[in-house]
Order: sequence, then structure tokens, then C-alpha cells
Amino acid sequence: MIIQLKQDITDAQKEALIAEVNQIGYKITEVKTQLGDYLVGIGKKDFDIRRIGKKEGIEDIHIVSDEYKLVSKKWKAKPTSIDLGNGIFIKDGDMAIIAGPCSIESEDQIRKVITHLKENNIKMMRGGVFKPRSSPYAFRGLGIDGLKLWYDLAQEANIKIVTEVMQVSQIEEMYPYVDIYQVGARNTQNFNLLDELGKVDKAVMIKRGISGTIEELLQSAEYVFSGGNEKLILCERGIRTYEKASRNTLDLNAVPILKAKSHLPVIVDPSHGIGIRAYVPQMALSGVMSGADGIIYETHEIPEKAYSDGQQTLDFAQSALLTDQIRKTFALRKTFALL
Amino acid sequence: MIIQLKQDITDAQKEALIAEVNQIGYKITEVKTQLGDYLVGIGKKDFDIRRIGKKEGIEDIHIVSDEYKLVSKKWKAKPTSIDLGNGIFIKDGDMAIIAGPCSIESEDQIRKVITHLKENNIKMMRGGVFKPRSSPYAFRGLGIDGLKLWYDLAQEANIKIVTEVMQVSQIEEMYPYVDIYQVGARNTQNFNLLDELGKVDKAVMIKRGISGTIEELLQSAEYVFSGGNEKLILCERGIRTYEKASRNTLDLNAVPILKAKSHLPVIVDPSHGIGIRAYVPQMALSGVMSGADGIIYETHEIPEKAYSDGQQTLDFAQSALLTDQIRKTFALRKTFALL
Amino acid sequence: MIIQLKQDITDAQKEALIAEVNQIGYKITEVKTQLGDYLVGIGKKDFDIRRIGKKEGIEDIHIVSDEYKLVSKKWKAKPTSIDLGNGIFIKDGDMAIIAGPCSIESEDQIRKVITHLKENNIKMMRGGVFKPRSSPYAFRGLGIDGLKLWYDLAQEANIKIVTEVMQVSQIEEMYPYVDIYQVGARNTQNFNLLDELGKVDKAVMIKRGISGTIEELLQSAEYVFSGGNEKLILCERGIRTYEKASRNTLDLNAVPILKAKSHLPVIVDPSHGIGIRAYVPQMALSGVMSGADGIIYETHEIPEKAYSDGQQTLDFAQSALLTDQIRKTFALRKTFALL
Amino acid sequence: MIIQLKQDITDAQKEALIAEVNQIGYKITEVKTQLGDYLVGIGKKDFDIRRIGKKEGIEDIHIVSDEYKLVSKKWKAKPTSIDLGNGIFIKDGDMAIIAGPCSIESEDQIRKVITHLKENNIKMMRGGVFKPRSSPYAFRGLGIDGLKLWYDLAQEANIKIVTEVMQVSQIEEMYPYVDIYQVGARNTQNFNLLDELGKVDKAVMIKRGISGTIEELLQSAEYVFSGGNEKLILCERGIRTYEKASRNTLDLNAVPILKAKSHLPVIVDPSHGIGIRAYVPQMALSGVMSGADGIIYETHEIPEKAYSDGQQTLDFAQSALLTDQIRKTFALRKTFALL
Repeated sequence: MIIQLKQDITDAQKEALIAEVNQIGYKITEVKTQLGDYLVGIGKKDFDIRRIGKKEGIEDIHIVSDEYKLVSKKWKAKPTSIDLGNGIFIKDGDMAIIAGPCSIESEDQIRKVITHLKENNIKMMRGGVFKPRSSPYAFRGLGIDGLKLWYDLAQEANIKIVTEVMQVSQIEEMYPYVDIYQVGARNTQNFNLLDELGKVDKAVMIKRGISGTIEELLQSAEYVFSGGNEKLILCERGIRTYEKASRNTLDLNAVPILKAKSHLPVIVDPSHGIGIRAYVPQMALSGVMSGADGIIYETHEIPEKAYSDGQQTLDFAQSALLTDQIRKTFALRKTFALL
Repeated sequence: MIIQLKQDITDAQKEALIAEVNQIGYKITEVKTQLGDYLVGIGKKDFDIRRIGKKEGIEDIHIVSDEYKLVSKKWKAKPTSIDLGNGIFIKDGDMAIIAGPCSIESEDQIRKVITHLKENNIKMMRGGVFKPRSSPYAFRGLGIDGLKLWYDLAQEANIKIVTEVMQVSQIEEMYPYVDIYQVGARNTQNFNLLDELGKVDKAVMIKRGISGTIEELLQSAEYVFSGGNEKLILCERGIRTYEKASRNTLDLNAVPILKAKSHLPVIVDPSHGIGIRAYVPQMALSGVMSGADGIIYETHEIPEKAYSDGQQTLDFAQSALLTDQIRKTFALRKTFALL
Repeated sequence: MIIQLKQDITDAQKEALIAEVNQIGYKITEVKTQLGDYLVGIGKKDFDIRRIGKKEGIEDIHIVSDEYKLVSKKWKAKPTSIDLGNGIFIKDGDMAIIAGPCSIESEDQIRKVITHLKENNIKMMRGGVFKPRSSPYAFRGLGIDGLKLWYDLAQEANIKIVTEVMQVSQIEEMYPYVDIYQVGARNTQNFNLLDELGKVDKAVMIKRGISGTIEELLQSAEYVFSGGNEKLILCERGIRTYEKASRNTLDLNAVPILKAKSHLPVIVDPSHGIGIRAYVPQMALSGVMSGADGIIYETHEIPEKAYSDGQQTLDFAQSALLTDQIRKTFALRKTFALL
Repeated sequence: MIIQLKQDITDAQKEALIAEVNQIGYKITEVKTQLGDYLVGIGKKDFDIRRIGKKEGIEDIHIVSDEYKLVSKKWKAKPTSIDLGNGIFIKDGDMAIIAGPCSIESEDQIRKVITHLKENNIKMMRGGVFKPRSSPYAFRGLGIDGLKLWYDLAQEANIKIVTEVMQVSQIEEMYPYVDIYQVGARNTQNFNLLDELGKVDKAVMIKRGISGTIEELLQSAEYVFSGGNEKLILCERGIRTYEKASRNTLDLNAVPILKAKSHLPVIVDPSHGIGIRAYVPQMALSGVMSGADGIIYETHEIPEKAYSDGQQTLDFAQSALLTDQIRKTFALRKTFALL
């Protein structure tokens, strides 16, 4: 059960409310986000919600039977809209395009990508400065200095920055320079990181785990939300299966399911989802038709020379073409009714 | 290596050719289909193809390094077109729609489906009369009598019949009544069945195995082709993974990969691919954008009353809407260039 | 629900019984095996079993809530013992050893294997004469002639024959020469084959599907049992997963689970389960400790020269050592209590 | 390539060595552990190792073609022995037993477990004080205070402590109280945590990822080793597959493969590996026969009342019996030769 509290609830009213819920045998967690104060009640017994609902100080109350609570559509039917400022949003009924290289490499590289984005009216740029790598001997990214460099150039161009945060200690140092913190597929269940991102007032995009379930992705989002941060975006990026003809198995089934279960926006990453440059466009457009609210893909001036993931990275001509096709596909999708 | 023989090749020329290939250390399989005679050479050594190519009696010759040979695009770049008669095709550059119930149930049910198909200009009907069921106690279909009944009604309406064949002994009895033999996901590696379907001059649609690889699907098609039947269609219908929020994991990555590796048409089955009625349309449209040459889905007048698979079956209103959306999405896709 | 009928039940008594069960809303399947006559009732409603139990003509009656019925331990707590004649059994509380080559290749090969088996007191020999192969161009086995040759040599030596049947038409031709029909991993859900094997009075060993569930394996056994054949053996042989460091992932968890759910004996195949010769012994011994009733593994005089699966085949010295270790491990296991 | 440096190597010799390696086109990472100084060279070109080997200052040099280097058996054939003091080891040729509850709950619970361990001569105790939980609302462990309490009681009894570390900031606060830091399955690829554990001089046990490959587990160990800590233990604890009859699929194939690829000791966790109490013993004993150097399992006075994982936790009677069986099985295994 979730109870949203009135802003002017008194301490006495709140105590009475908590006592009432405890009496049913439910455990209370208090959640305070930038947008509201909630009591999340966890328990299994049936009870009459009207008994609680008539208490004072309640803005809204719902029974949520899912394991995740605050991110559930049963709590909040209205889709969450992520406002990044300057009229840039990630939200239901819109098609966010986020493009950029796997790794941030140099000033020259950043400038070229930004020019490409501006030419194609793309307003969000992805890129890694902290790179999770299977091998300790591989390139691990330019780090915070790379991010600062990128920030200066992106600011000028009014481009938003989406980049991965790998550990708690990076959150604060990255804060001034990032618009969306990305939680990578290897960190989807790094619960301490999620806890700490709950304390931040910037958007967080959580990628589905390497072999994470849809349920686990929602639970991970619940960590951030219950930590205090409602600005959440979910990302389907392919799962690990026995099939080795592609890097991962892009699970587009997850898109309508996530959209039905949660009020959070859902983004598709076709680059990691298939891992083969020539087929990224088809998977991006499939992602649009699956109901996604945005597409995030990798692009680089010369993919063959990229520091990482070159095999799945589009060159600028392919990227420009794809962006146009995404928009046309989304325009068609908007005309479609669902029965 | 594949050598297509000239129609007027002499026995002496053929023997000389085989001797030459054997000398390189390659094993020869002779393949005779309705469309041509081939020698398939299997081996691993490098050799100078010109040495063989200059022999007499050769129509065409190619080295094919894939494990599958005759179904490979390296052998035949031109897409295979399946001609079902009366101007009905399944082919690259077209969008086949195949709809119908999971199980054929009764004359009344068939009539209603056919009426629905005619109203929506759908020319191919799916339906099971032999049903593979995990439990021996479940409904196993109406059998050959159901197929005859269906045939009579479909003939009248000029509707083509797509239905599953489960075992060798059914091939002959089904022959007069079927337009496309479907090989189900549990029989993708039933090699005897594939062998025998190679001897038939009707189209065969092979579904990907429950947890079959893309490579195995192509090898299974190679069985039918090398058995003598080139009229082959591949079908992606979802694979088994750890994710249980959907019935299967629809692997749309497979579509562009199959299209790139093989000259055969590729169909997507969103009904089995996700297994949840409300999300079948999104997956169907995603399938169109992934590059599929057709969509096969389940529809029934009253899905809740269907003998099987009701939970993933569209009602007629949903089906009509989806058909329209598939066509519009395909029309848009045709305007898209690929870089 | 399962009702075992008395041998002297009258037609009138049986009809009355069926009528009673139908009245509860349960669907009846009559099953007649070599050992007994049963009525299997399928339905979901609760009912008072005493109401049926007091009817005449009943030998035994149980409610079985599992999807599979006759193979369930809820029906029959006493383990099934497979009697192959000449004092050779596969049964709970014993350790069957089945060894032999992947493919039957020649008289000389068979003789050498048999000599090796005799020297090590192994009484059952595996070997393929019909080989399911992914590629139509691979060696498909010596066929029925190979089986006859093998049979003559095995007879002399009092060695039992375990070999794969791939299709319905082979059942009859193989019948005189086979002691255990093996259903391969690609045919676990070839329901027609299972149906027909139900009509045979020889033992059937069913391998778990390539990515089959434990539940599906039991359902497949139910097919054969309900077809009339109670002589069933289950075999864990590894499943398909994302891990590619081994050929398959041997799922030894399946052994105690199958033993708890079913009264049928369970065999482990470490050769396919890991697919790497050097580690087959460890997996065989692990299989013994997991509670298996037998081990089936591949051995060949010169594994490097085997027609198939050489990489996972033991030579005779390794095989002799392993057999001794299996027996010692089993002897130790028998001294262990379970709490 | 790995070069172990002589302890008395001069700066000039080292610079000359690095220059030589760079000239081949290899990138050098310097690794300094508690036990030695190494240069790890990463590159793909062939080269003549004698050219480098004859330089001065080299203790040992090997080409290691694996992706992981320092943990590879190609580098160090001699098995790594983990010395925990007081004659307690985890090492090849020995059978470590680690038992204890899923969560540390109370002083009383700890005392009871320790008494049980002492009675059975078990010298290492597992238990969680920081618990990774899918849901933010679940019990997350007693934290550092629980660890201190545990430490006091364990010290007295000369019991070693194995417990999970979830994040970088916990490493230091846990340091005085822990004998083996456990990296959980959700953190196997938490590279920052691995980096920091490289700086510690206490043993680290790395669990295989939820769906981690064997290769990835070794790469994760390489992170810690190359960070400076050679005291590493690998743990197989089951992987995620489509099979839902067990909690995870215990992949015992991994044990002989890991033992062959690496010099590090390998432990098996049957509790998480199957997740069902009644079958934990069989899987533990299978683990012993697979070649493991130790078994880690969950035990609690009253499993039904455990705060977490009760369904897979043994009671003390089962634990005592299992310990005895593990030792007998291991004693038998030691008598076995491998061919």
C-alpha cells in the first residue's frame, strides 16, 4: 500500500496514520522525494483500505500488490515526464533520441559528434567517461576530466549529457556536469549505488541487467525512487541468452510490459541490443514500434577507429538517416489506435 | 562449394566433375530439386575454384563457407519467392499476412474466421489440426477430418492454408489440402520429417526451435532444400530464456541476421513471441520494422473461448486494426533506405 | 486423479466408475499398460475422493495434482525397476553403467568395445546407428544393418543394447535387436514417437530436451506411459545455456528433483553434459553423488578417430578407471543416510 | 605475457625491460602484490620470448594467451594456497568447509551456530551482515555492529569469518573483523569494488555472477590480483537459466574447468546452487566429486525462522551429517587417480 501524505500533514496525524497501518501488520517505510512524501506499507494481509483512507492528512492512497510499489502504474497511472530543461523532455507520447560514442575520446571527437547532433536536431548526447570493462587491462575511459571537457562543449551547444556512473564516490564529482546519470547493465543491482542516486535531484537512467528480469529492473528503480528520486528512466538493452549470432538478445517484449507495469519512460538501446552495426537501424525502428519513449544509440565519426564498441557504432551518415526514420516511424505510430 | 549443373549435362561430364571435386578431398552430395540439380561439396581445404569452374556442364559455381550451403545468400543472392498461386506470394519486398486460430475447432469457427479474413483482404489462414501438446491428456486437434472441412471452405474463398505437420505419415494425407506445411518449434530438428518434406512440391515454413539457434534454423532449412524442396520460409517465434514475464522472448535480432545470411523469406510470429494478447500488435509492428517479409498471428471470434492459446489470440476487431497498421508500417518501411 | 482398476472389474462396474468421475467434471483417459489398467482423470475441481473410492472394481486410487500423473511419485511411491533380463537391471538402489561409442562404426570397433566392457563387467552398451545431425551432409550412422551386426556380437557376449530411435517407422525394424530404445534430446517432444513407443514392450530411455524443463521431461514420459509402456528411464544430459566453455550445462540439480517427483530411474550422461573428455570423469562421479541410478558415457578405442563426438569420448584406460571409481563412489553413497 | 621481476631489479634494468616490451607493440601494466612485482604485457603480435627473457632482472617469464593473465595456470602451475592463520587453509588437495546462516541475526543465533561448528570441527563461518536484496523494503542485515558482535564471539572460538562486502566504503570498516571478504553474485562485475579489494591484504572470495561466464569470473579475479591481492578464491554458486524447478542451475562443469584454467582454489555453494533444503546435501557431495577445494553452505538452528533463505538452509542435524559425508567423500576422492 502507498499513502501520499498531504504537504500540511501534522506530526500527530502522521503518527496516527502510521499506528493505524502498523496495526494491520504492515511495515512502514517513509519516503521523501523532491515531489512528495509517502508512506510505503509492506505486508500481505487483506485489509479494508477505507479504514485507513478516511484518516486525516492523506493526499492519495492505493493498494499496490506488485513487489515494486512507487514505480508501479497501480500507484500512479499518469506517466512520469522527465524534464531536462530548455524544453527537452523524456516522456510518454514523445520520442527522445540520444546518440553519441561509446567512449568520450578527445575534444576533437566531442566537437564532431556535437556538430552532427546539432545538424540533426538531436538534443541528448551519450558517451562514457567511466567505462566498465571485463578486463582490468582495457581502456577505462577519460574519467572526470573527460566529463568536464565534454560539459563545456555541450553547454555551448545546449546538448544534454547522458553518461554512466559506476560507483558512489563518482556521484558527487560528476554532479555539476551531468544531466542523466546512467546505471550500466553490470550495476543494475548495485544497491548501494542505487540508494545514493536516490539522494540526487538529477535524472537516472537504469539499464536492464545483463540477465536481469523485468521485475528486477523495476525493483532497482524502486530503490532509487524510495531513496528520494522520482526522475527515473528505464532502458532495455538486450539480455544474455544462448544465441551467439548477436551480442545480446534485444528483448522488445520488455517494452510494452514495462509500459504497462510502470509509469516510468522506457528507452531502447539497439546498439548493445544486437551489437552489429548493419542491423542497428532495424532494431531501433522495431524499438519505436514496440512502444518505446526513446532510442539511445552509438555513433562516431569513424566507427572503425572508436576506442570501444566500434562494431556496433553508426557513422554520421547512417545516424542522420536513422534519426529521420525514427521520427517518421514515431509519427506513424502516433496515428495508431490500440484496441 | 555448390555447383549447379546444366540441364543438358552428360553423364560423362558429371562423372568427370565429381572426380575432380573428390580429388580436392571434398565429399559430394547430389541434390535434385524441382528447380535444379546441384552438387554440394563438403570439405575444408582451400582450392582454386577456377580449376573446377572451367569444367563442362556447370551452370553456376560458388564457394560457400557457411555450415549451411544451398540456403545461404553466398550461394544465391536473389531472394527466394514463394508462389502459392492465384497471385498470392510470400517474398522479399512484400508483406504477407497470415492469420487464424490456434486450433481448428468447427465449421462455424472456420466460416467466421474466413469471413473476417475476406473482409480484411487477408489471403492466408493459419490453424492447427494436429496439435503438439506437452501433456498427453490435452486436446490434440481435429486431425485430418478437420483439415478436409477447412479445405472445402477455404477453397471457396480462395484462402490459402498454413498448418502444422507433426510426423512423416501425415505428409501424404495432408498433401491435397494444404498450401504451406508448417514445421513447429518442437520439430525444427526432427530430421526425418525435414528429409521427407524435401520430397514434396509444396511450401514448407520452418519455425525456429524452442531454444534453437539461428544457425540451426538454417541447417534445418538445408535439410529440406537438400532433400529436393526449395520452397522454404523461415519463422521467428520467440526463444526460451530465463525471463518469465512473457511466454517466450521474441528475438527480432534474428530477422535482419536471417535476411542477411539466407535468400529465404522470413516471417515473424508475435503471438507466440510474446504470448500476451494486449502486446501482440506492438510486437507485430516491431516485426515489420525489423525487416520481416510477413507476420503470422492468432485470431479468433471469441479468444476467451478458444480451445488453445486464447490468452495470446486477438479478437476480430483487434485483428482488423492490426492488419491495417501492419500495412501502413510496411508502406513506410518501403520508403526507407538502408546505409 | 488416477484409478488403477482391478483385473476382474466388470464392464458395468467400469462404466459406473467412469460415469461417477465424469459427474465431478473430470475428463477420463483410459490407459492400458503391460502391467495394469488405469483411468486417468483430468480436471481441476475439488472433490471427495472417498465418494469414488468406495465404488467397486478399484485396485488403488490417488489424487495427483502434478501435470504428469502416472509417472508421478504421488501415484506410485515404489521406485520402478527396469528388468532387462539375465539379471541386468536399471533401478533405484543400484548403479547401472552404460558405455560405448557415439556411433557404431564397424565390426572391428564393436568387438573391441565389447571386449573392453566384458573386462570391466559392464553389461550395457550404448551406440548410435541412426544419428541425428544438425547438418544434412554429416555422417548419419550405419542404420539398421549396423544394428543387426551389433546385435549378433552383443548377444554372444550377453551385452544389452541401448540405441537411439529417431522416428516411428524405425521402432518396428529395430525391435528385435534393441534392449532400450533411446529418445534423443531433439526428440523429447516428438509426441508421435512417444505415443508409438507406448505400444512397445521394451524399455525406453528419454533424454531431457536440448533446453527442456524437468516438467517437460516428466510429461514426455507420461506420453509413453499413458500409451501403454511403463518401462521408462529418464536421462539428464545437460541443457543449453549462455555458457560456452562447456558443450552443455550438466544440470545435476535435476537428479534429486526428478527422483523426488517421479518413481522412474534417473541416469546421468556426463559425456554430453560437459562435452570435454578430461572432465567427463569428474562429472560422472558428481552424477553418482547427486543420486543417479546409472551413468551413461562414451568410450572408444581411439577417441581421436571416432566418427563423431571424439572430443568427449574416453579411451579404454580412462573408461576402466572411471568404472572402478563410479562403483567405489556408489558404494560409499549407499552408506550415507539422508536427513 | 607476464614477467615476474627480481626483487633486486634496478630501475635502469626495469626501464630497459619495459622499453623492450613496448617495442614489440605490447602495452605494459605494472602490478605490485604482497608477494611479487610483475609486468603484464597486453598485445596480440607474435614475438620471440627469448629476446625478452635474456634481459636482466627477470625472475620468471611466460606467454599467457588467455584474456586473464595472472590468475591463469599458464602463468603459475602451482596451486594458490590461502593461509588464514592458525593452521586453517583453503587450498588444492584439501576440503574447506564453510557453514553458517544466510544472515547474522543476533548474539544468541551466532553462539548457537558457533557451538554447532565447534562440535563438528568446522573452522570457517559464513553469514551476511550487509545483505543485497532485490527489494528496498526487505531486511538488509545488521551491518557493521552485527559484524563486530560476531567477531568477538568467533575470535574466542578460533572460527574464521567469511562475509559479503557490498561497496568500497565498507572495505575499511570491515577490515579488522573479517577473514575472507566475499564478493556476491550481483557484484562480480563491480569493477571498482574489485579494484579496491586489490589493495587489501586479506583473502577475497569471488562468487560467479548471476549469469556470469567462467571467463568473466576469471577476469574479475584478475582485477583483484592486478590490483595487488593474490589471496583469491573462486566460488560456483549456480547460474540463471530458463529452468525454474530450482532456484539456480548449479554448474558443476565450472569446477574442473576453473581448476584447469586457473591456479586459484574453487569452492562450491550448493545452497544457492539448488535453493531447496532437501537436495543441498546431494549437490554438496556432487561438488566434492567435481573437484572442488571446499563447500560453503547455509545452516541455522531453526531454518524456518531464519530471516532469509530459510528454504535452502540446513538444520544442525542435517549439517552435522553432511559435514561427515563431505569428509568421507573427499577422502575417497583423494584415492582416485585421473587419467
